[in-house]
Amino acid sequence: MSQFDSATKISAGQALTAEDIAAAGLRASDDVARYALRLADDSLVLAQQLAGWISRAPELEEDIALGNISLDLLGHARSFYTYAGTAWGKSEDDLAYFRDETEYTSAHLVEVANGDFGQTIARQLLFSLYAVHLYDELQRSTDETLAVIAAKAVKEVEYHVDHAWQWTMRLGMGTEESARRMQAGLDIVWAYVEELFEDDDLIDALDGIAVRPSTLREPVMATLERAITESELTVPTTPAAVTGGRRGIHREHLGFVLAEMQVLTRKHPGATW
Amino acid sequence: MSQFDSATKISAGQALTAEDIAAAGLRASDDVARYALRLADDSLVLAQQLAGWISRAPELEEDIALGNISLDLLGHARSFYTYAGTAWGKSEDDLAYFRDETEYTSAHLVEVANGDFGQTIARQLLFSLYAVHLYDELQRSTDETLAVIAAKAVKEVEYHVDHAWQWTMRLGMGTEESARRMQAGLDIVWAYVEELFEDDDLIDALDGIAVRPSTLREPVMATLERAITESELTVPTTPAAVTGGRRGIHREHLGFVLAEMQVLTRKHPGATW
Repeated sequence: MSQFDSATKISAGQALTAEDIAAAGLRASDDVARYALRLADDSLVLAQQLAGWISRAPELEEDIALGNISLDLLGHARSFYTYAGTAWGKSEDDLAYFRDETEYTSAHLVEVANGDFGQTIARQLLFSLYAVHLYDELQRSTDETLAVIAAKAVKEVEYHVDHAWQWTMRLGMGTEESARRMQAGLDIVWAYVEELFEDDDLIDALDGIAVRPSTLREPVMATLERAITESELTVPTTPAAVTGGRRGIHREHLGFVLAEMQVLTRKHPGATW
Repeated sequence: MSQFDSATKISAGQALTAEDIAAAGLRASDDVARYALRLADDSLVLAQQLAGWISRAPELEEDIALGNISLDLLGHARSFYTYAGTAWGKSEDDLAYFRDETEYTSAHLVEVANGDFGQTIARQLLFSLYAVHLYDELQRSTDETLAVIAAKAVKEVEYHVDHAWQWTMRLGMGTEESARRMQAGLDIVWAYVEELFEDDDLIDALDGIAVRPSTLREPVMATLERAITESELTVPTTPAAVTGGRRGIHREHLGFVLAEMQVLTRKHPGATW
């Protein structure tokens, strides 16, 4: 359906779409593909959750803001899935719709339910600050495709950071009730931040290609703590939860998210009946 | 929350946002406001329904396409609501979230349920072809604000027409099953096309300002029939349904759409707790 004129060469100067990647005749290695899959899964699961806010946000303007963020994240997921699929002869839709929960490698943070608006914004603040530092580094990956996808994504995620940061301030410094809810949201999602910084064998195998998660801990936490204290809120002391998302061990809520997303496509594989 | 630098003057050369309109110190007459409200209600109800497809569409690419169309329509609704609200000292959110079903003036076409993908595309084809001809005319309205909103909207709706037309062809000329479903969708929504062309007292009172619906019948129907026959489908013969949307008489499904949209804001008026 796309009317995009396919590029046959990837260059860092251009915006890179899933269609470009599919058309470029690339082939990711198995390890690179597994890494791209993690990045894609995080974005897709969060995009799917945010879509639940469309037309349920507290303002029409906010409907559009969360909707745009959701679509940006879907775009990132599409690019990473398409690139991952080149290793295995699979399409983005194969990877999104036809893998089971234990094959998903998303982090638990994006699997936390929307909760109230404060909890959603808390999740956005943590994820966006993580993602902006991650993509900023990934632009320097020796894998040219990952670098170009990251260069496009980082610009969009910068806007997501602004959005979440401004809402954190608005709620934190608003009414007593808004501050209480924002703090409660932060206290809940805080348990899942540590998982984002875990290294493992796959990361060790991708030196210079993947961003080492443990190197993100210091910059992400420093920015996060600044956002929280500037909003007159308290840095949570919630202990880190048990991890496992990268190994296919997930929070119960992911099952619901995937079921909702996959039911139609699995019922009508091929999509055109 | 908006970072937009408010314009103090409306000019046809610039994109006009809800924020511009709110900042421009305009005041619509009661009749103009009632007309703007019809346009806004159609866009909002359809936007809300399309949002239900996000992450349920048959392809990731289609998730994004329907999501973008939904957000475009929300943008049109915001502009028209904001302008209508200048007549009555109300905000866009007041008009979207705090009117009851009988105060809504949407056409029955946009109130038809999503149904399957074929029915959604049929509804998109009819509405987009109607809207593109409507906004094309409305650009010449003697009401400068309506003209400027229409000039921005028509460009986006042209894309919506392309999208719906391409899917109509893809389904109509795809498999036997896809053609059957697309035809069934057209047969259902066809009952609601006639209402779009009804004139009434409000239209009579807005000569040169509003687009006279009856003048759209010929161009819209001609384009619609071309889209249907080019897709190897049959122009439906479904008789026109009883109308009444512009007078606050609605199909049952609108109640569900509004309930889903309004529940959160009505529970927490003011939105920041």
